[in-house]
This record gives sequence, C-alpha cells and structure tokens, in this order.
Amino acid sequence: MRTAIVGGGVVGLACAFELARRGAEVTLFEREQPGAGASTVAAGMLAPSSELEKTPQVLVDLQLDSLRRYPDFVAAVEAAGGQPCGYRDEGTLWVSRHRDDELELDHLCAIQQDRGMPARRLSGRDVRQIEPYVSPRAVGGLLVERDTQVDPRRLVPALRAACEASGVEIRAQTVVRAIEPRRGTLSLTIESDAGASQFETDQALLASGVWLEDCIVTPLPTLGMRPIKGQIVHLRGQPLADRVLRNSDIYLVPRADGELLLGATEEEQGFDLTASAGGTLDLLRYAFEVLPGIYDLDLTEIDVGLRPAFSDHMPVIGPTNVDGVFIAAGHYRGGILLAPGTAHWMAELMINGQAIDHLAPFGYERLLQNQEAPA
Amino acid sequence: MRTAIVGGGVVGLACAFELARRGAEVTLFEREQPGAGASTVAAGMLAPSSELEKTPQVLVDLQLDSLRRYPDFVAAVEAAGGQPCGYRDEGTLWVSRHRDDELELDHLCAIQQDRGMPARRLSGRDVRQIEPYVSPRAVGGLLVERDTQVDPRRLVPALRAACEASGVEIRAQTVVRAIEPRRGTLSLTIESDAGASQFETDQALLASGVWLEDCIVTPLPTLGMRPIKGQIVHLRGQPLADRVLRNSDIYLVPRADGELLLGATEEEQGFDLTASAGGTLDLLRYAFEVLPGIYDLDLTEIDVGLRPAFSDHMPVIGPTNVDGVFIAAGHYRGGILLAPGTAHWMAELMINGQAIDHLAPFGYERLLQNQEAPA
Repeated sequence: MRTAIVGGGVVGLACAFELARRGAEVTLFEREQPGAGASTVAAGMLAPSSELEKTPQVLVDLQLDSLRRYPDFVAAVEAAGGQPCGYRDEGTLWVSRHRDDELELDHLCAIQQDRGMPARRLSGRDVRQIEPYVSPRAVGGLLVERDTQVDPRRLVPALRAACEASGVEIRAQTVVRAIEPRRGTLSLTIESDAGASQFETDQALLASGVWLEDCIVTPLPTLGMRPIKGQIVHLRGQPLADRVLRNSDIYLVPRADGELLLGATEEEQGFDLTASAGGTLDLLRYAFEVLPGIYDLDLTEIDVGLRPAFSDHMPVIGPTNVDGVFIAAGHYRGGILLAPGTAHWMAELMINGQAIDHLAPFGYERLLQNQEAPA
Repeated sequence: MRTAIVGGGVVGLACAFELARRGAEVTLFEREQPGAGASTVAAGMLAPSSELEKTPQVLVDLQLDSLRRYPDFVAAVEAAGGQPCGYRDEGTLWVSRHRDDELELDHLCAIQQDRGMPARRLSGRDVRQIEPYVSPRAVGGLLVERDTQVDPRRLVPALRAACEASGVEIRAQTVVRAIEPRRGTLSLTIESDAGASQFETDQALLASGVWLEDCIVTPLPTLGMRPIKGQIVHLRGQPLADRVLRNSDIYLVPRADGELLLGATEEEQGFDLTASAGGTLDLLRYAFEVLPGIYDLDLTEIDVGLRPAFSDHMPVIGPTNVDGVFIAAGHYRGGILLAPGTAHWMAELMINGQAIDHLAPFGYERLLQNQEAPA
C-alpha cells in the first residue's frame, strides 16, 4: 500500500515509522526539515496526571493509552534507528509557594489518588531533602513518581533514523499544496526547489500541525486549525534538579546534558515566531521563585513554537470524507505524549481499514457543528 | 608619519580618523571586524551628569571636554564618510519608584545644579505628561535635558567609512602579537589567515580594549587590564518612550527605528560572553517597573560585551616607556562618550609630540604603584 504522510513532526514521523513497520510503502513530505516545527520546542513531559481535571476523560484515556505504549515505542525506535530518545523516569515534583498552591496540590493529589494514580504530598522540608536547590520559601510539594519524560530534540532525530532504517522515504523541503482523488488513487501536488510536480499514492495522512489547512483537500471542509504560540527558555550550567519541578505557573525540565528548560507561555499571536519580553520575564521570574540558583546559569536560547489547536483543543485522529485521506493533527500541547498512541491507532485504521470505536471522539465532524451558518 | 593603530573599536577608529585628518599615514589592525568588541554593545548615552558623584573630577572634566566636542565630531564623521551616527538630543528622564529613589534624585539634582548643569525635578504627574507610558507607580522624576545619545551601531560603521574616506587602511582579522623597537622604527609582529609577518611603522597606538595585554610590547610593564561583562537586552515594537528613561537599576534607551535597549549588567566573569539568566531577569523586571508596556514588545537580542577596565576604572591615555608607543584603552563604561576627546588629545600628543598637562592623571604609571612586590 503506497502511503504519503504530510508533515515531519513527531506525529508524522511516528505514524510513518509504525506504518512502515507494518509493511506500507511510505513517503513523508516535510516543508522544512523533520522536527522544524513545534515538536523540537516541546519540553517532552509525559505526565497525563498534571491536568486531569481540565482534560476531557476521552482525551485522558487516549493519553494513558499512549503513555503505556511509550517504553515499547522508545525501544522499537532505538532498535530500528540506533539513536537514543532521551527517555527518563525521575518523575515530577510539584513545588508550592504559598497557601493557594497548597490547596491546589491537596486537590491535585486527591484527584490523582481517586483515579488510581499514586502521588505523595510532601512538606517543605521533604521537598528540599529530595531536591536541595529548591527555594527555602517552598512550603510543600507533591511527588508524582510515575511521570516520565523524553527529550524531543533526541526523539525526533531518533525517529527520523528509525523511519529511514525502516524504508520510509523522507522528502524534506517539499510542500504538499493539494490532494485530489483521481481514478481510484490520490494525486498530490507537491512543490520543492525543483518546481511543482504530481505524486500518486493510495492513501495520505495529514499530520502537518499548524500547516494542516495550507494543503487543499477537495472536498474536505475547513476545520479551523490555529497556532498557539509557546516560548521556552533554555538555561545551561550546574545541574540544579534531578526531576521535573513545577507549579501552576512554570515547569523546569532538566536534561541529561546540564540543560534546564523553562516552559512555557501560551499566546494567541498567529504565526509570529518572535520571543516576547513579557514571556521571557515571566518564565525567568517564576523559575527563580522555585529554584533561585537559576540566576547564575547561562541563558543559551529562547525558543518559540506554534502548537496546533482546534477550537476544543482536542486532536483530530481519523478518516475524512475523502476516501484514503486521513488526519492526525491538532495535538496542541500533547504531541509528544500522544505520538505512540496516535501512530498505533492510525496504523490500525489505515492498514485494516476498519472504524475504531474509541477514536470516535476525535473525528473531524465535531468541529463542523459550530461553523454552520446561523439560520 | 607612519602610524599603526591596534584595535578597531570606537576609540581606535576615532583616533585613526583624527590622525588621518591631520595628515598621518594610518594603518588600523583589528582582530575581528571593526566594532566587533564592546563598542557596538554600548547603549551610547552621552550623559556625564549621571554619575557625577562616583566619578573623579579629572575624569568628569575629560568627559565634559569630550561631550563638547561631540557635535563637531559627528559632523566631521558624517561629512567624511556620508553615513549617519544616530546622534539624538532628547535628554534623560530619571524615574523614581519610591521614597529612596526620590531622595536619590533630590541629591542628584542638587549636585548637578551645584556644578552648573541644569536639571529639573518633576512630580509623578509631570513624568507621565512628558512620557505617557511610564508606570502609574512612578512617584517623581528628574529631567536632564542636556543629555544626548548616539547609536553605537551606526557610529561605528560611520566612523569606519570616515576612516576609509580619509585614507586609513583597515586590516581586519589581523592580530598584532608584539611590538618591538628596532633601529629607530617599530616592528609589529602581525598574524592573519595569510600567516605571520612583520610591519614597520614610526608610531603605534594601542587601543585594543580588553585585548590590550594580548600584544607584547617590550619593555612595557603589565597594567592589569580586565574585562567587565555587560549584558544588554534589545526589544522592538511600538515606540514607548521619546527619551532615555532610567533609575539606579536600569536604563531604557529608545532608538529611532523602534528599538528599545535595556542596560546593563556589570559582572566579573572573565572573558565569558554568554548571557546569564539572572542578568536577563533583572533587566526585564527593572524595565517592566519603569515601563510596563515592554511586556508586549519583541525580545530580539541579548547582547554581551566586555568593558575594558584598569583597577581604578579610569582610562590610560598617553605615551609609554617605549618610544613611539602610545595607549588609549581602559575606557570602561565611557568609550563612546570619551571617543572624540581621546582622539583629539591623542592626535595632539602623537603629532606634536609634546606632553599634555591635563592628560597627566591618565598616565599608565599610576597603575604600577599597587603592583610593587612587598618589601
């Protein structure tokens, strides 16, 4: 089965790898280089527990399904391509600064325990015993040991290597402008430095994030994809934490190589990729509250990404009204976490061709209801 | 007279221009490109009034002398090279945030008036009438209308053009390793991509900032030059101020093109050129206190420079114990302000060959006293 994938972010690459492993003949088109979009700006926290209350249950279920697949996914990627994904399992330590944070952590702890996710409430002293550099002003904490993380800047190249080792053809710097059904196959109009041309395929998967609607698929309706800007600050120097530290304003993610990531803003700024003074100020001051030692670290990078989001902040994962055309996009803040699950179910769907019940909440049709013209 | 200048910062370029105008045959050696060092990181405020109390009177006199020369200097540079220096005269507005700032401004105002420099104390309301975007929390101000500024990123290329138009030969990416007197002339050992070679000259001026002591001049003693790191943050967007705004923690310098500079940290970090998290945090939060609207500006650059300083933070401007070798270095935070004066007096000294009385406090000998071995 000839399969074209549009988009070389973590979702497109994971789907390409999974489909190729199952025998599909996969060509992946990426407008820049694989990972040039939001994927490599992400912090890579694999922590569905963090926002349980604000997340619809169907999405939590999908997250937990994907999380369970992560160890096998990482093992398969590393075995196929020979490159490490930067997978770590030190957990998350929530740090509270005052009474409001304490109440929030009580609440978060109760919800997690209620859903069978173990979490442990800590005193300020406990927090500093586990992470000695945490501010002396911290009054308490919540330790979530089951949280894990992956380094997206390792995962993406590792996935790319795994794809290539599995026979995926990657065409970088190639834009897919349109997809049209034609005599039982799909015809893609592609553009690269070599000019415009056509590409024939049996199936196509749109996994192009914020660029989803840049590709015209007749007669697929408009779904209202929009970018949500996120800034992340990279620091480097003496390691100050072993695990992810966070509160409701900030997360601090340590990397194996001495890097510390501070994330992340959420801004409605269209396709703007410029760092803002306010975003950087907030990240630095919230991080300083948690871990005063950041003051002396090098500031090596301010990175900006565009998270792909639909109006309800849930992804679309499923078929479309065009035979052979599928969508896996709109993963918003969850692309890294959801990649193994998305790849698994998308492969089931595209290779077996059967509807999958628990993908039903992620169909594109839900997005059309709000767009009807008023009577 | 064949004259070699070591260093293509603002001081080296200004001296080269002045010497060439007076008929010297000038060759300027710069280890990278002209302006690659501290000069183009500077904010370019021409405001000797700002730190009157902390500055020795001899240096204030030199600053005021240089300031008086600025309009003619800019006119000459612009006429010779045809490029603008970004000279502006909107003055400085000190903004006070609380009682301590108010007392400081009372004091600063009194000192300035005492020395015949007009300055005007303002209420918080006055401040916002002059600069409407200043924080509503500002409680008072001090307007120093005579302060001016120049844009170093325009001044340096303008000076380079003026030098070239005046016959100065600029050898970029060339390091001067050593200077040795030899049979009545000076022999420079220079190194570039083309390899090492010798260059003969009659006179040499060391204007190489923090790299001063990278060039071995026999038998000139060690003077203890050291770098003092400074970070500056560049913002861009809607113009929020017409003039320089400042207090004791921060200055905000608007540029004609919509840029706003926030400066500057002072750090003893050796030759490290990496931005720090703490430095950036401080600049952003102090700037936000003065001008909350910066929150929405783009953060376009974090720039780091190394100010050249001797132990007493005064420059060395004068001859050395090696015939024909002169020094103009160690201008610390004052290189932009002091450039026209330094160039004028250095040209008098090197071309007329006579000692200049009021350069006496800037001789290198003063630095040797503290370096004597204990008895």
